[in-house]
Amino acid sequence: MNYSIIRYIIGWVLVLEAIFLLLPSLVALIYQEKSGVAFIVTAVLCAVIGILLTARKPKNKNYYAREGFVIVALSWIVMSLFGALPFVISGEIPSYVNALFEIVSGFTTTGASILSDVEALSHACLFWRSFSHWIGGMGVFVFLLIVLPLTGGSNMHLMRAESPGPSVGKLVPKVRETAKILYMIYIAMTLIEMVILALGGMSIFEAVTLSFGTAGTGGFGVKNSSIADYSVFCQAVITIFMILFGVNFNFYYYLLGKNKKNAFKIEEVKWYFIIIFASIAVITFNIREFYDSIWAALHHAAFQVGSVITTTGYATADFNLWPQMSKTVLVLIMFCGACAGSTGGGIKVSRILIMFKTIGQEIKTLIHPRSVHTIKMDDKAVDKGVVRGVGAFLMTYAVIFCVSLLLITLDGKDLITNFTAVTATINNIGPGLMEVGPTGNFAGFSAFSKCIFIFDMLAGRLELYPILLLLTPSVWRKN
Amino acid sequence: MNYSIIRYIIGWVLVLEAIFLLLPSLVALIYQEKSGVAFIVTAVLCAVIGILLTARKPKNKNYYAREGFVIVALSWIVMSLFGALPFVISGEIPSYVNALFEIVSGFTTTGASILSDVEALSHACLFWRSFSHWIGGMGVFVFLLIVLPLTGGSNMHLMRAESPGPSVGKLVPKVRETAKILYMIYIAMTLIEMVILALGGMSIFEAVTLSFGTAGTGGFGVKNSSIADYSVFCQAVITIFMILFGVNFNFYYYLLGKNKKNAFKIEEVKWYFIIIFASIAVITFNIREFYDSIWAALHHAAFQVGSVITTTGYATADFNLWPQMSKTVLVLIMFCGACAGSTGGGIKVSRILIMFKTIGQEIKTLIHPRSVHTIKMDDKAVDKGVVRGVGAFLMTYAVIFCVSLLLITLDGKDLITNFTAVTATINNIGPGLMEVGPTGNFAGFSAFSKCIFIFDMLAGRLELYPILLLLTPSVWRKN
Repeated sequence: MNYSIIRYIIGWVLVLEAIFLLLPSLVALIYQEKSGVAFIVTAVLCAVIGILLTARKPKNKNYYAREGFVIVALSWIVMSLFGALPFVISGEIPSYVNALFEIVSGFTTTGASILSDVEALSHACLFWRSFSHWIGGMGVFVFLLIVLPLTGGSNMHLMRAESPGPSVGKLVPKVRETAKILYMIYIAMTLIEMVILALGGMSIFEAVTLSFGTAGTGGFGVKNSSIADYSVFCQAVITIFMILFGVNFNFYYYLLGKNKKNAFKIEEVKWYFIIIFASIAVITFNIREFYDSIWAALHHAAFQVGSVITTTGYATADFNLWPQMSKTVLVLIMFCGACAGSTGGGIKVSRILIMFKTIGQEIKTLIHPRSVHTIKMDDKAVDKGVVRGVGAFLMTYAVIFCVSLLLITLDGKDLITNFTAVTATINNIGPGLMEVGPTGNFAGFSAFSKCIFIFDMLAGRLELYPILLLLTPSVWRKN
Repeated sequence: MNYSIIRYIIGWVLVLEAIFLLLPSLVALIYQEKSGVAFIVTAVLCAVIGILLTARKPKNKNYYAREGFVIVALSWIVMSLFGALPFVISGEIPSYVNALFEIVSGFTTTGASILSDVEALSHACLFWRSFSHWIGGMGVFVFLLIVLPLTGGSNMHLMRAESPGPSVGKLVPKVRETAKILYMIYIAMTLIEMVILALGGMSIFEAVTLSFGTAGTGGFGVKNSSIADYSVFCQAVITIFMILFGVNFNFYYYLLGKNKKNAFKIEEVKWYFIIIFASIAVITFNIREFYDSIWAALHHAAFQVGSVITTTGYATADFNLWPQMSKTVLVLIMFCGACAGSTGGGIKVSRILIMFKTIGQEIKTLIHPRSVHTIKMDDKAVDKGVVRGVGAFLMTYAVIFCVSLLLITLDGKDLITNFTAVTATINNIGPGLMEVGPTGNFAGFSAFSKCIFIFDMLAGRLELYPILLLLTPSVWRKN
């Protein structure tokens, strides 16, 4: 275990966070809010600790997979521990556990809140909540790899540990170039959404924060009614952008490059859209009597499906009141999640695809026990390690899910609230059903349960293993 | 595809069913009930069709895995289609779909019922319901292999397709001898339970039917209150026997043989008891205030845990009214299920064990990517095909679960009823929560949903693939 590289990189993450914290400070200055002090204080604290940690360069800059996992997991935890401070210092979320829940929900792009009145927050705090979605969506390390002069081939371990999906490939041979391309696409799409929303009549502040929330597939809003009170045009724009940010970013890379055809050959993206259209169709049909016209039903079905499958968590309607079939479809696509290599959470469409292909292969093996069958994706054979990894991922996911579900029953809430609360946090969605439905929040849970949810959100965003490895004693052993 | 062997063996299954049907006819004679006619008529029908089908011997007695799956799946369906007739002919369950639901629930040892008043049934019908549990518990083919002069090595395919668990081994080199040993243990344990229950004050009829229900881990009772109105002694006896019938039968085989130590080396059995004791402890603590004494709480906790984990489904208390934590523990052990090679259903403890070991292996692989890790069970390396099979099984299970859940939402029932109804049928348990709780039943569902449950019960009992293969076109292709 290379401890000095861990210290060094976490130091850089804190320096980066200090810089990030200047933005909400600026917002406080513009709106002349006192909460700006809280952000400045935290920024200085992060900068000082960060500079101290990075002062001595590590003797050995080489590190391996396990250091990669540990660095990523610890960085996210440290980032959250400090990121919660402005809420507490400003007094806007006095309880530290609540503040930590809120910022972890932000960084992990969950969007679950413990606040019943978000409109009471200052602009600076609202901005910090939404901006944390944007940072967490693409990932801190993808950004760090661009700005930090980290050399050596070890950096792929960081990207692999932070990026979602069963197998992370590089778009171009150099990790840093890949990271640059991803961030450029990310920034461009976010800016386009901001401009369209502003043209659609939103204030600049709303256009910026809601675009951050869409881009990171986060879900924090700036109004108590989430997105329900905005114009149909703005809602439609957000629907489209939520769905676009859930697409595997390789799609956009191919689309911008020479081989545009490759973009449309990605099986995962094809199935992502099939699932979206099928879910919208079923729900529209199922809720048509709840709305004045079939178009209104379609509008709300599309928004909620886009919001849930991409694990954003914005809402224009209280789907708690929808019929059972619609609710069940929404719960199922909560688990499905968006594409790998997007900013969305959940199990990911590619894993679901590999799952179905594994079942098909097993049936073929039962019929013809002696022939050899391989699983193909995008016309290429899937590595056996990846297939085994998907199986192990689903099992780990089920175990974390069941243990969390069991632990939070101590609060005595009903089964649906508990079940969907775990679903909403581990998949980084935000709202669930019943008490944690679109009009509810997580304030009613005990501090213990909130810690479970914080664990689930981090585990979900980092795809389980980085966080689990922190709890594995053998990881910490010196080589 | 060897169609003639399929016809031939299904014929024998029908002949066997005709013989089985004579037993309830005898019960009707004893109690002088008219319903006896219905059983005689059905027995004659089965015998005639069975004899016609077996009249011409198959040209080729060799068959392979896929024929094995098809024979087992079709036999269970045919057996159920005929087994439902006595209920309809006697007029005691006039609707054929309801009668089919009831007998499939019987053969698959589920114990879910569409009846709100079981006490209205004749003794013959009650006996047939309970007896179907006993037949289905150990399996029809395990029995058929003993009595039928089927030769050749292909018979293992039948036993493999019908017996539960990730890998089916033979206790002794000959399949037929293995089947004999299993049935002798099964009969002996059932008789011991009958005698103890009769000595404990039950009527002979109750002792016989309830022992059938315990042995097959079925759950059909003969009173509307299930087991609640029997003495504490009888309830305790049933608790112990439910748990004993959920143990891997290899345990008893070793215990009776020379190497008694081997019995206690079976990891699955060890963990089965650990899960049982842990669940009882948690629930006892959680429900202690609901009962007069801690002993009463322990008694009911033990009964319900034994009933649910072995997927029997008897009840002495309405656990619908228990606190959330107890309910959640019960729902989780509904999925866990009993040991492989027992009469119990569910996912099976051995699969859960392999699942946890797969997760452990994956974490080790992440830490040390280059070393090779194998999964061990009972100190032996587990075959990679078995590990892959467990993964595929869990995935298939999840898919069938989700599709069933979605389809039954058409009835508009609440999410917990729907969720636990699918859980209770696919795991062959019986009761779930809310509308299908211990005091409820499945009568409120539409005929369509009942067909889904029939599919789930069969898929659950035969461990998914035999039933799924029936729906796979390539299975039916001639070689």
